[in-house]
Amino acid sequence: MHFADVLQLQSGATIRAYDLAYETYGTLNTDRSNAVLICHALNASHHVAGVYLDAHGVELPKSEGWWDTMIGPGKSVDTDRFFVIGVNNLGSCFGTTGPMQIHPDTGEVYGADFPVVTVQDWVDAQARLLDALGIQTLAAVMGGSLGGMQALSWTLQYPDRVRHAVVVASAPNLTAENIAFNEVARRAIVTDPDFHAGHYGRHGVLPQRGLRIARMIGHITYLSDDVMNEKFGRQLREAVVGHDSGYRFSTQEVEFQIESYLRYQGDKFSEYFDANTYLLITRALDYFDPAAAHGGNLTQALAKARAKFLLVSFTTDWRFSPARSREIVKALLDNQRDVSYAEIDAPHGHDAFLLDDARYLGVVRSYFDSKVAPC
Amino acid sequence: MHFADVLQLQSGATIRAYDLAYETYGTLNTDRSNAVLICHALNASHHVAGVYLDAHGVELPKSEGWWDTMIGPGKSVDTDRFFVIGVNNLGSCFGTTGPMQIHPDTGEVYGADFPVVTVQDWVDAQARLLDALGIQTLAAVMGGSLGGMQALSWTLQYPDRVRHAVVVASAPNLTAENIAFNEVARRAIVTDPDFHAGHYGRHGVLPQRGLRIARMIGHITYLSDDVMNEKFGRQLREAVVGHDSGYRFSTQEVEFQIESYLRYQGDKFSEYFDANTYLLITRALDYFDPAAAHGGNLTQALAKARAKFLLVSFTTDWRFSPARSREIVKALLDNQRDVSYAEIDAPHGHDAFLLDDARYLGVVRSYFDSKVAPC
Repeated sequence: MHFADVLQLQSGATIRAYDLAYETYGTLNTDRSNAVLICHALNASHHVAGVYLDAHGVELPKSEGWWDTMIGPGKSVDTDRFFVIGVNNLGSCFGTTGPMQIHPDTGEVYGADFPVVTVQDWVDAQARLLDALGIQTLAAVMGGSLGGMQALSWTLQYPDRVRHAVVVASAPNLTAENIAFNEVARRAIVTDPDFHAGHYGRHGVLPQRGLRIARMIGHITYLSDDVMNEKFGRQLREAVVGHDSGYRFSTQEVEFQIESYLRYQGDKFSEYFDANTYLLITRALDYFDPAAAHGGNLTQALAKARAKFLLVSFTTDWRFSPARSREIVKALLDNQRDVSYAEIDAPHGHDAFLLDDARYLGVVRSYFDSKVAPC
Repeated sequence: MHFADVLQLQSGATIRAYDLAYETYGTLNTDRSNAVLICHALNASHHVAGVYLDAHGVELPKSEGWWDTMIGPGKSVDTDRFFVIGVNNLGSCFGTTGPMQIHPDTGEVYGADFPVVTVQDWVDAQARLLDALGIQTLAAVMGGSLGGMQALSWTLQYPDRVRHAVVVASAPNLTAENIAFNEVARRAIVTDPDFHAGHYGRHGVLPQRGLRIARMIGHITYLSDDVMNEKFGRQLREAVVGHDSGYRFSTQEVEFQIESYLRYQGDKFSEYFDANTYLLITRALDYFDPAAAHGGNLTQALAKARAKFLLVSFTTDWRFSPARSREIVKALLDNQRDVSYAEIDAPHGHDAFLLDDARYLGVVRSYFDSKVAPC
């Protein structure tokens, strides 16, 4: 969807014109009351559900949407009943206007000149997409992690346009430790000699070394200690025959399975993700803090919300721990809001919000069936 | 201390001749029964206690030994009663033979050719130092973190030479998550274009970008989420006047105090620490696993130990959590060993083992006074 009107950003900067990539699933009902907006997290996109087909109608391998376990015909968010919209945020590298695209004022690739965008800006841009689709009110807005922050922000920026907000594995802001991990990842990218102050495009290179490190750090924080021990433990990739320990005694070669796994994740990510986008999105995470304008009082900040809420957290998520979700729950209850909260006992850490967990999917299904379902 | 005899390493490699840097505090008693060996962790050295003086006898600023809160006249480990030895491990960059020094076979700096050393190797080298000092039996061996692993290994490699082992904030091996953090740090160093496969010395450069990232990652894992929130929270370094949020809306500039702190820690570390040493020491951590030779059975592995033990852990230490210390305690109790264990309620994470905490220092003092004190 092309938008020709200037978008005013929270920073004071503007984006003159832009495209938002989006996908929809299901059918908008006649009174336009069954729309569910899905907001994505760090490295995801508008491709939320379903699969892509090739020219012959054959399913492309590994083309499932990132929340395909959750959303689809007969699933927790049932696209036989709801009109689901997946939208790719500004600054991304998956089709929406972002650093890899041409700056209309200069005719050059944006690179580091793409303006800093915030959760608030994304929500504003998403609201315009709804306008363009003729949707006044969302049945629900929903997201996990950074996507959950957008869902929460929707209820504050456009309180009358959201009936329900589903906020999964999220937080009212980042802790110092969260910011610290983001900062190390950013430093790895920015200090990569191929970064060229964000204008690597002009130099025909990519700061892939930095991106790999960033992704490896991220990946550790998405998993729990438990699940890493269970999946990898201290397993060697290939024990050396003829030595008691099986070690190859090398500081640079892969010794343990966990190393191999992390390197693979880093390599894969550095092939498809844009470094400037990584900086922008981690910064949007850092900046989100609706309570800040209220002297840190989250209860006051959430007084504006009119939506009903479902919050979900996962016991082993140490990136966005259950305690952070409970802060939101408490602030909403302080405001006498209608809140459901589920703390799912899951071993998978932050990643759990993307996984196929029956209790988790069941909670969301119940909520949509009993509370969100269009009249 | 120079050692002219070949040291056989666990890997099968050898070190032909080497120097160990060490310091001692207090006086060895006539029956040589009051020696306490202190083993250091990742970035520390033989300079355990006391301060250095300049040529005029004036105390050099910030020259306190890394465990000066613990060790000294009248302190928990009382150098008026004990003869304390601090020793710098092989592969280090603080005076002991390591990658920055000349390889006797080639006449060139070792760099990446320095052999991989393990906790077991370090303990063997430390035992030779004791031989040279004429000490048969240690009153105690003591260390925190990686130093605690050495203390534990002493009781297995030289069970008859250790009366007491004090193992602080340590673990019987690294978890997958621990290894993962080490691996990311190593990748940051190894993929720095200035690393030159570990022979940066020959190129007149240093892989400081990688070292900075490695240190920033390490630093996050040494602290607790709590203490980071308390010390830094979401404080901005300098709020921008004229904007509600106070943000400067930049992906590359320092915005939050925690970023500033981490960058400072990374910069400082990269000025004094050697990259090859970092690789070696993190690998020694990864490799330590006394239970491995017993099919993972720690109880069997620790059956060899004859020493009495004090174990200490800290509640908010998520790098070497109390649960890991309790594994050691249990395995020792399974073997009917004499074990004291203290779990200190401290907010400072893994770093707590280096800090001035009255309860922690009190526990160690009591142990030394009542159990270790020479007859």
